[in-house]
Formats: sequence, structure tokens, C-alpha cells
Amino acid sequence: MARKIRIGMVGGGRGAFIGGVHRIAAAIDGEIELVGGAFSSTPEKSKASGEDLMLDPARCYGDFKEMIQKEKRRKDRMDAISIVTPNHMHFAPAKMALENGFHVICDKPVTFTLSEARKLKDIVEKTGLTFALTHNYTGYPMIKQARSMIQAGAIGNIRKVIVEYPQGWLSFPEEQKGTNKQAEWRTDPKRSGIAGAVGDIGTHAENLAEYVTGLKITELCADVSTFVEGRLLDDDANVLLHFDNGAKGILTCSQIANGEQNGLNIRVYGELGSLHWHQETPQYLKHKSIDGQRIFEPSVGDLYEAAKVSSRIPFGHPEGYLEAFANIYKNFARTVRKRMNGETPNEFDLDFPTIDDGIRGMQFVETVIASGKSSSKWVKFKS
Amino acid sequence: MARKIRIGMVGGGRGAFIGGVHRIAAAIDGEIELVGGAFSSTPEKSKASGEDLMLDPARCYGDFKEMIQKEKRRKDRMDAISIVTPNHMHFAPAKMALENGFHVICDKPVTFTLSEARKLKDIVEKTGLTFALTHNYTGYPMIKQARSMIQAGAIGNIRKVIVEYPQGWLSFPEEQKGTNKQAEWRTDPKRSGIAGAVGDIGTHAENLAEYVTGLKITELCADVSTFVEGRLLDDDANVLLHFDNGAKGILTCSQIANGEQNGLNIRVYGELGSLHWHQETPQYLKHKSIDGQRIFEPSVGDLYEAAKVSSRIPFGHPEGYLEAFANIYKNFARTVRKRMNGETPNEFDLDFPTIDDGIRGMQFVETVIASGKSSSKWVKFKS
Amino acid sequence: MARKIRIGMVGGGRGAFIGGVHRIAAAIDGEIELVGGAFSSTPEKSKASGEDLMLDPARCYGDFKEMIQKEKRRKDRMDAISIVTPNHMHFAPAKMALENGFHVICDKPVTFTLSEARKLKDIVEKTGLTFALTHNYTGYPMIKQARSMIQAGAIGNIRKVIVEYPQGWLSFPEEQKGTNKQAEWRTDPKRSGIAGAVGDIGTHAENLAEYVTGLKITELCADVSTFVEGRLLDDDANVLLHFDNGAKGILTCSQIANGEQNGLNIRVYGELGSLHWHQETPQYLKHKSIDGQRIFEPSVGDLYEAAKVSSRIPFGHPEGYLEAFANIYKNFARTVRKRMNGETPNEFDLDFPTIDDGIRGMQFVETVIASGKSSSKWVKFKS
Amino acid sequence: MARKIRIGMVGGGRGAFIGGVHRIAAAIDGEIELVGGAFSSTPEKSKASGEDLMLDPARCYGDFKEMIQKEKRRKDRMDAISIVTPNHMHFAPAKMALENGFHVICDKPVTFTLSEARKLKDIVEKTGLTFALTHNYTGYPMIKQARSMIQAGAIGNIRKVIVEYPQGWLSFPEEQKGTNKQAEWRTDPKRSGIAGAVGDIGTHAENLAEYVTGLKITELCADVSTFVEGRLLDDDANVLLHFDNGAKGILTCSQIANGEQNGLNIRVYGELGSLHWHQETPQYLKHKSIDGQRIFEPSVGDLYEAAKVSSRIPFGHPEGYLEAFANIYKNFARTVRKRMNGETPNEFDLDFPTIDDGIRGMQFVETVIASGKSSSKWVKFKS
Repeated sequence: MARKIRIGMVGGGRGAFIGGVHRIAAAIDGEIELVGGAFSSTPEKSKASGEDLMLDPARCYGDFKEMIQKEKRRKDRMDAISIVTPNHMHFAPAKMALENGFHVICDKPVTFTLSEARKLKDIVEKTGLTFALTHNYTGYPMIKQARSMIQAGAIGNIRKVIVEYPQGWLSFPEEQKGTNKQAEWRTDPKRSGIAGAVGDIGTHAENLAEYVTGLKITELCADVSTFVEGRLLDDDANVLLHFDNGAKGILTCSQIANGEQNGLNIRVYGELGSLHWHQETPQYLKHKSIDGQRIFEPSVGDLYEAAKVSSRIPFGHPEGYLEAFANIYKNFARTVRKRMNGETPNEFDLDFPTIDDGIRGMQFVETVIASGKSSSKWVKFKS
Repeated sequence: MARKIRIGMVGGGRGAFIGGVHRIAAAIDGEIELVGGAFSSTPEKSKASGEDLMLDPARCYGDFKEMIQKEKRRKDRMDAISIVTPNHMHFAPAKMALENGFHVICDKPVTFTLSEARKLKDIVEKTGLTFALTHNYTGYPMIKQARSMIQAGAIGNIRKVIVEYPQGWLSFPEEQKGTNKQAEWRTDPKRSGIAGAVGDIGTHAENLAEYVTGLKITELCADVSTFVEGRLLDDDANVLLHFDNGAKGILTCSQIANGEQNGLNIRVYGELGSLHWHQETPQYLKHKSIDGQRIFEPSVGDLYEAAKVSSRIPFGHPEGYLEAFANIYKNFARTVRKRMNGETPNEFDLDFPTIDDGIRGMQFVETVIASGKSSSKWVKFKS
Repeated sequence: MARKIRIGMVGGGRGAFIGGVHRIAAAIDGEIELVGGAFSSTPEKSKASGEDLMLDPARCYGDFKEMIQKEKRRKDRMDAISIVTPNHMHFAPAKMALENGFHVICDKPVTFTLSEARKLKDIVEKTGLTFALTHNYTGYPMIKQARSMIQAGAIGNIRKVIVEYPQGWLSFPEEQKGTNKQAEWRTDPKRSGIAGAVGDIGTHAENLAEYVTGLKITELCADVSTFVEGRLLDDDANVLLHFDNGAKGILTCSQIANGEQNGLNIRVYGELGSLHWHQETPQYLKHKSIDGQRIFEPSVGDLYEAAKVSSRIPFGHPEGYLEAFANIYKNFARTVRKRMNGETPNEFDLDFPTIDDGIRGMQFVETVIASGKSSSKWVKFKS
Repeated sequence: MARKIRIGMVGGGRGAFIGGVHRIAAAIDGEIELVGGAFSSTPEKSKASGEDLMLDPARCYGDFKEMIQKEKRRKDRMDAISIVTPNHMHFAPAKMALENGFHVICDKPVTFTLSEARKLKDIVEKTGLTFALTHNYTGYPMIKQARSMIQAGAIGNIRKVIVEYPQGWLSFPEEQKGTNKQAEWRTDPKRSGIAGAVGDIGTHAENLAEYVTGLKITELCADVSTFVEGRLLDDDANVLLHFDNGAKGILTCSQIANGEQNGLNIRVYGELGSLHWHQETPQYLKHKSIDGQRIFEPSVGDLYEAAKVSSRIPFGHPEGYLEAFANIYKNFARTVRKRMNGETPNEFDLDFPTIDDGIRGMQFVETVIASGKSSSKWVKFKS
């Protein structure tokens, strides 16, 4: 009989940001129950965070190791672990969770280095467990509609792709003020890795472009910058792209685009027409061609199944970021449940980013940073 | 110590629409636990619905009476009842729940008739329990920003209010096809009461206008129509409004505005400027004046506290209908929890519609329908 | 052989506003030559204005009577007179021009009173000359597309029409400051007639609604207000409409809608879909139905001929207010030229408002003002 | 005494496109009179075109040489020549006109080659006559507002510039169909020069970026493509930019961006905020910063003088492409008139693109095409 998937969380204690988002995303569809966690590397803080969340204190642990060891022995043990720590603390809990029989859902980028990502893939494959990566922007219904339209040939062979992720919140040296934890770890090479904006949001843009178009980037030419004095990692990058079908593209990401919020957007131009989508008004997908412009919206008119199953409410009632994020969790939960029950997940259940997306993201980061330092025009994006 | 508020649901079984919305709204903030319900008047269907929701079968009841009686005796009894049935089945479960010590959160319009609404108010007052009405559109952060700005005098004395709720989904005789349950009960006088569009969505427009402006409608002049042949209730109304400060207004609601989805929108013109909001892009509040146009968005710049506490995620990440709805549930849960703990809810906890809004909505319905039949120009809106 | 139509202007001297608009509108298509005028009732000012315009001083006259008498005797005499004075000075020059063989193009509303308008119609009919009224908003290409689509049945039988003309420029008592000539005459009963906003912009809304839909208003219920203290005419009106096919509607016009500019807009709902147009982004016509939303734009895709002949440049290059205004002048010029050459104008040449539109506008003004004072709900709009 | 500037046109006969645009632009403000032209290289076609335009047949010449020679001897001779032929026919008439004492206003790009552009500059300087280049997009009021705001420091030091000019009209091999003259010459190296999209519209983007920001591009990295089989020139380019103050940028232009019309747009990010403008809705300039978003519009609120003098009508009445184009003509005419009268033009009169902009555009074309062929990352943009 069906039951809710029980998860525990690593990270996401008081003062964190993305942990709260994951919790809402997990809660929305009523398919997952958060039963405990190791919310902080400081045991007291972990306990206090669990109390804030009105969880059973017995299942709020001092660290992820304790959690995994103790949960493993419970009859009502967690089914899966959600990892929402900074990048440098993804690999260890993911490895241990998988090796102890827990499915994993993990924030992006998947690991601190490409090499860790490759090791993680081996573990996922060896254990046969489910691993999901929260490239949450692919969870939007109209992104799924765009992808389905492209697969069905609605805009013909793709010629040009423009994908942008402009933010402005690091226009000033926030990380030097001592009050902005998010800014601190995201600009710290010890916690974020070799890239700043490129890793934090450039990977979302790369993932979105490849998800929507079904194409792969084969080489790129990057202009990587750090505008804010004293900052240790990049805060802006402009990148020319070549895709495997001959299409050309531009990817730009920035955290110093003052006035921008989370302006992720994509335009895909094919021989027969184009598709246009902007994350800040995610309910609209524009289809433009020589015949004019049509706007697609969730639940309006005839949509592809992948779009339909991704929205919950009648047309004109906007769903947003949290619901898109929840689609990753919902599909992860359904896949985990079916696999636990010996059933086969269908294509919609399986519609979430995997370890392969994680590896591709890490390769993207390494290629862009290398290109930024190179005087050669094109640098290969090896897969 | 804090714990989640336990709720049970009346209605919202298989095939229902608004029940699922209430469940998501209740789940989002992790402050409420749905522990059971009487999801259908057919006991088997109620049980089956509970199974779909992965709830404890022992707490999925055959009808609301059974639920209230049995829950009352449990140690871990429900704290509150959520009522999501059609209009004619609001009063009985609300009354019984309150009289047995359960708080109530109820879909709108509050009851089938104004007289029922008045009786319910007496019961709420007598029991001292918390009663919330889900006029969910007032839950949007930018609506709260608008209200706060008006209270602070940002647009001066209000002169004109235009509020619209156009829908198009009843442009055709959906209720005569035998396949659309939502259309059937919403156009059926036995289940909806004396009004169709006026009760279903006109009341949302009325509630929004009064909530945002802080004004009260004093008289109105309505042109009420039924465009679809064979339909038993109104499907369109155009109404001139007079407010208690001398402001004039227009309210229009329609379910035959073909091509419209849920286009609730409001414009408020004051002596010094105006505010503009549209439900389908709820993240934007436009403030226009002789000096130009400024756009307010959640978490951007300096907002009023009521707006800040109503959003969950960083700017540029749209929250939508479900999150606005969740704000009603969140505030209801916090108020209930504080009252159970002997604490005093603050103004933000108490920011949800009450039985008084419910009575006002029923008066609005009766006044509009009366005016629609009258050859006098103005009909008083008595409070 | 074809030659440019020679016009003279009455009004439009220094300090005027609409005269300059008419001159640009007349110039745009190179079919009309402005050869002189009586630009002011003060002869010196008229001369000085002519000098500003780099016109032949000999053809810049002291008043319209002198102009008509002298031009009549010239070999290269003006073909037509353009009247751009305040409302109370339309009738006399129009009458004299027509009776002396000049075609007339006149600003709206056509006259000071309905009775003058009826007399003018008699003169137009008796002389057989061409009379155009500059209800310029009907000149927009996408308005013509909307009208053609409705004629072709694209949205089916019309059920509901909402037309609005909000302005905010008279939110304060501009006319009492002594520095705003436009505000002064437009709020002065001696120059504007019995109505303020209703005559100045309400007539545009009425004309647009009837032009686009092809329907006629049969009765209305008006709430007419004056919000600014000391103002002598209305500055706001909300009006319920009934149309001759059974459709219902709302017309609202305001000059105290603070923050609005020239927000004329119209929505027409038919059985099968709806059309939406806003003057401030006039290049877009939205067509919405149960199947979704399509946006029509000039020169994009397959448009009706009436829309095609009304734009001049390739898609994506916005034409605006002046070009729409120029369409009235262009069609007037072509009609005049063909009639002078003994040819028959075609339907596109004849696509400009006439004296009949003028009469209807004056009836609208009188009916709205009467309804505003009446306690009866509905007042007949006689034609 | 002031009189209209008399111009003659080279090119722009039947079947041409941009000639008609120039004529409207010249006519709008009533400061210029088109008195004749050499509208085609075929004398009969030139005459016929003059007849269409209702011009004096005696001043419609067989070719530009005849025109210049004959006009030179007239008492009422043309003051200036407007050149609207394809690129390869700009230099000869411009040279001859200048050398015979006529001012020149010329379509862009200024010449066929950079070397011609340099020669033309010598002639302009030697003759001391006025030369204007119709980079018309800089004529929009909100572009002037943006430029003034940047000069005044409103967004601080500029860090990033994104400028795009996507078109879709050459998505298919239009030039191979034998029916599209515009497509034919614009893709023909003999008439357009070494570049297709880069010369035709990339130069507009380059000019706009440098005009708005006041910065100069110093080096670039271009990915230049021809997507349509059989096409002889580029139809798409993606370019990374470095500016002289250290700012980074992206310029992209395309004629195969299927579904795009004339989507020229620019975003400029400074340390303190950003400005956003799109040609298809040119009346809006968005200013975004950490404090929120404000929208500037012509005639609304407090604008810079350069914006004010560039619009003609009250707020909310959109002016478009033709009016922006007319601003180039108006300023050219005023400068010519003042210089003829021995007066000194002011900064607003002189606000039009000159031969220096023309040279810069040709350098841009040559640098982009060279970079497209180079395997080096950065190519210097020499000035």
C-alpha cells in the first residue's frame, strides 16, 4: 500500500536559505514526510532547527553520520536523504547515504569538483539507488511544454539558443560585510569551488538549455570576469556556444547585473519558429513565427502531457518557483516509491535531473573557467 | 511546546477541485498536519480518497458527523476542521464543528444564505473559537503591500475603484454536458444559492476591493445577466458602486468572458496616485502618479511588513496562487496555536478573513441580485 | 493628374495642442499640403503662428471668415479646411466652409450641441461635400483588424464590451492655476458644452466601441461625477451599456484617474472568444479563446486588408498615435481627390468618421449627462 | 527669415522600402520640403516615382548626376540631398553632392567600404557642409533619456552591456525566390559589401550601444554564421565585447531569428543600477536597481531635456519608429538652416549621427568579419 516517502535533511538549519525551499517543495504534494535531519554541523543548532520545524527531537541529529547510522537501524527509517549544504559538503553525505541504502536528492552543483562527481556516479550505479539533482528550473510546466514542442518538431531544426541568468544581488561586496552568509559561502573558493556565478547560476542556464533543446554543447568561448574588488571568484561570464547539431548560442550569467533579480530566460530559434520563456513570469511560453505570436499557458488549450502533469491548479492561477521545485521532489518521490514497491516508474516519474546532469554541470564549470583563462578562441566541452 | 496544528477535511474527495488546493495550502508552511477527513458523503468514496492521500484509514470517516463525534474523543484529536464542500453544505459541518470545540476554516461564500451566515456568526462568538474564510486572493503579498500603502496615505483619499473578475470557462453550457461537476454545482440554485458568478467570483472581487481600500460599499446599481441558454443562475454582472468615503467604483464579474482565465484585477485611484494589480501576474504592484510609474515586487526594495511576512523566497522567484492561499492557512494555524497556548496572536497572525467578511459577502450577493431585478438606480448595501 | 490636397487650418496657433497633431497627421503621407490658415482669433497671433510654420504670410489670415472669402477667389485655392478650435467654435467655420465649397475635416466632438450637429448634417448633405471627424483612435491598424475579425465572425455573437478611457491629468484643479489653457477650455461649459470628460474622451470610447463591434448602444445607466472642487463639468463617469444585439457593456472615462495617461482600451467578448486592445501599446491585438492566446501585430502573418492598408512600415517598427491620426487625414484626402476627379472612393478611402459619428457622439453626451441626473436606472439612447 | 529646407532624394523609387520611410521622416515636422529627386537609376522609373509622389516633374531627374548639375543652377535649388540607395551607391552621390555645395543625409552603413568612408570624411571636412547618417534608432526619446541618465551618473560606472538586434525575415532563402528585392540586395556582396546581417543591423546595435553608454568598443570576439544554404553573406553573429572603461558586453544580431521582427534592445548595467530598452515598445525605459523598478515614459515626470525635445505629443500617446527617424531629419534640418543663416546650432540640433559614426560602423563591420574568420580570441577594434 502507498505511503509517504520519509526523508531526512542534511543542512538547512537556522539562517540557511535553500533548505526552507526544499522543505516546502517536499511538502506541497503530500507525497513526502520530513521526519528528521542533521540541520547543522553544530549539534545544538541542529536540534534547535528541528524544534523550529516541530519535528520529533529524537530524529534531529548532531551530524549526518549520526543520522545515517541511527536511522539505518529504525524500523520506520528514512527512505531518502535531502542534501542542502554548501557545495563542498555534498559529496560526503551523499556517498555515505547511498552506501547505507538511502536514496538521495541533492542541491546543485552536484559536488565540489568534477572528480567527486564522477566518483558519485560510480556509487549511484553500484548501489542502484535513486539520485536526483535539484536543477529546479526544469520543473516549470512551460519548460516541459517547450521541450515537448521541440521534440515534436514545432520549430524545426534549432539554429540559435540564447540563455541568460542575470542576478544583481552581488553588485556590491556583500561577502565583506560579515552579515550575509549566502554571499560569503557562494564567493568562497573553499566552499564553492573554482567558480562563483558560473557554478551557482551558470550551471542552471547550461542545464536549462540542454534540457529544453535536447542538444549538447560541444565547445565554448568564455569571457569570465570579477567586477567587485576583492572578490575571489567570478561574478560575471559571457560565453559563446557551439552545439552538437551545428547550432550557435550565447550563455550569459551574472551576479553584478544590478537591478536584476532571478532573470533566468531562454530563447530557442529553429528553422520554423522560436520559443521564448522567462523565469520571472514562468506561466507564459511564447511561440513566435512568421505567422505571428501565440502564448502558451498552463492548462490552457492543448498542451503536451509533460506540461499537463506538472501543474496543479486551473488556468490563470499562477504556480511559481516553489511548485516547479516541488515537481522535482514529487517525481523523485514517485520513482523511489515505485522502485521500493517493485514497480517501474514511467517517463513522467523519471523526469528529474540525475547524476549525469550533475557531471555535465561540473564539466561546464571547468570548461568555462578554463576558457576564461585561455587565449584560444574555442575550448572543447568534453562529455 | 510548539506542534503542528492537526486538521481534518470535510469534502475534497476524488473529482473535487478546491479540496486539493486547500490541502496544498495547508501543507506548504509545515505548520499544519492533515490527519484525516470526511472527504465525501459516500463513505466508500471518502475512504478511497483518504487512501489516495496516504492517510490513516482509521481517521477517514463516512461523514462529517461521524468524524466530529469520533475525533472529539481522541487524545490526539484534530484541532480544526477545513470545510471545502459546495456552498449548501458549509453551515451544518461548521456549526457542529464549532459546537464540539473545533476551530473552522471554510471555503467561500460562507454559507448558502445570509441568514445562515448570521447564525454562524452567533455560534463563532459564543464558542470563542477561530473561524477563517478562504478569500484567498487577499493572501497575495502585493495585495498586502497595496493595502499598507493606502493605509499610509501613498495615494491620498480614494476617488475611484475598478475591480474585475472575468472568467470564460462557462461560455458554453458546460453544466448540461454531464461531465463537468464544477460547472454543475456552481450553476445549480440548490447547491450555490441565489447567485452564480456573483456568488462564486463576484464575492472575491467585493472582498478584495474592501480589503485593499479599507472602504465599505454603501450602495450599488447592478446589471445582472444570464447569457447561456438554459442556465439557471447569472453568469455575468456589471455593477456601479458607491463607497462610504464618497468614492465611486465599478465591479464586474463574468463567467462568459471567453478567453479569460482568472483575471481578477483591481485599480484604485486616489487623489495623489493609483495602484494597479492583476492576479495572473500577482508579483507586480504598479504605483502610478504624475511622476511616473514604479513597480513593486516581493522582496525588492523597501516594503511594508505585511507584505514581507507573506512571501517565502528571494525576489524574482515568483510565488503564486497556492502560496497566497497558504498565507490564509498559515495565519489561521498560528492564531489557533497561540490561542491554544494562551498566547495573543499579533496583527499578522490575525490577517485572514473572518465570519464578518462572510456576512458581508452574503449581503453583497443579496444586494446585487436584488438590484439586478430592480428598476431603481441605486440599492442600499446594508451592513 | 494627381496633386496634393491643399488645406487651410482654423485654430492651432501658438499655445494650442491639437493643431500641431493635425498638421503632422496631414503631413505624414505626402498627400496633403498645408498652404495657410486662420490660426488664432487674434490676427497678429495668427500671422505669427503662420511664420512659425514657415507658410506664405499672404495665406495666413486674421480669422476664418477672411480666409474663406479670400481663398475662394484664388486659382490655387484650398480644397479643404481643417478645424481644430475648441468645441464651441466648430460649427460656424464648418458651416461657412461647406457653404463656400470647401471640404471639411474637424476635431471632435463635432459641435457644441446636438442641435448644431443636426444642422451641420443637413448642410453636408445639401452641399454634397466631404466631412470627416477626427475620432483618430479608429485609425489604428489593429483596431481595423479587430473590426474585420468581428465582422468575419472570429469571436461569434458579441455578449460583453468593456471600453475605458482613463486619464489623470485633471486630478488637480489645473484650470484654476491660470497656466494651463488646455485645462481651462476643456472644463469651461462655455467652450466645451454640457460635459467635461464625457465629451472630451467619453465620446472617443463610445465611438471606438461602436466602430469595432458594429453594434449600437440602445440604453445606458450613468454615474457622472465631479471630484475636483470648484470644477464646473464632470471629470469622471461610469456607465452601464445595453447594445442592440442584447450585449451588455461598461464604459468608463475619467480625467482624475491619477497616474493614467491616455489609457483608452477595449475588450470585446463574443461567444467564441475575445479581442483586447490598449491604445498605449497599439501594435498589439490579443485574441483569446479557450484554445489560448494569439497576438496580432501590424504586418505580421495574415491580416485583413483594412489593417494592412493602415500601416506603413515593416513589422516590429511601431507606428503610433500620429500615424493612426494620419490615417484619417490620408483617407479624407484620397476621398476628396477622387471626388474632385470624378472618381469613386473605395471602402478603404471612405474609412473615416463622418457627420453621423458626430451626431452619435453628441447624443451620447446628452444621454450620459441626462442619465447622470436621473434616478431611473436606464435611459434610452435615441438615434 | 526661416523657410523649409528643400531636399532632393537619390533612390527610393517604386519597389524600394527605406525611401518611403525617409520621406515620411522628412515630412513629419514641417521643416523640410521634398522638391524632387533621382528616384531610380532607370530614368522612366524615376519620373514615374516622382509622379506617384505628386512632385514637379521638372525636378524628377534621370540620375543623381543630372539632378545635382541642374539643381545647382536653380535659384530655388535644393539645400540638401537625401541618399537612400543600397550601400554600394552611397559614396558617389554623397561625394558629388558635397562637392557641389549640397548638404547630405545618408542611409547607413555610410559606404561600401571603410576606405570610402574615410575619403568621405575628408570631403565633409573640406567642404564644411553638414553630413548626417540615419542611425535612426538613436532618435527615440527614451534612448536620449537613457543616455542623459548615464551621463548624469544614474547607474554609476558601467560594467556590462547587452545589445541585440534579432530579425527573422531571412530565415528562409528569400533572396533566391526572385520576388524580394530587399532580400536580394541585402544578401548580395556586390551591393552590401563584406557583411550581411552584421552590416545591415549589427551596425545599428553597435551605434546604439556606443551612443547610449558613451563608451567605445576596444576589442571583440565574433562568431559569425551563415545558416541559410546558398546565402553569400552572414545572417547571424554573436560577439563578445570589451569597452574602453573595462566594461564587458555581448552584441548579437541575426536575420534568421525566426519569429523576431525588429527586436533591437539594449541593457546597460552599472555599479548602481541598470537601464533596459526595447525598440518594439520604445516608449518605455526601465530603470532597475536594488530599490526596485521605475519606468520612464515620454512626457511623464521629470525627464532630461534631450528626451523632452524629442517627442511631440502628450504622454500615453505612443510615438514610434517614424517619429524617431524624423528626429534625425529635424535636427539635420535645423542644423542646416542655422548654418545657412550664419547661426550656431545648439547641442540638441546637433544630436544626429555624423560621418564619424559612419566610419566607426564600417570599422565594426570589418573587425567583426575578421574576428569571425580568426582563431584568436580577441581582435582589436581600432578607431
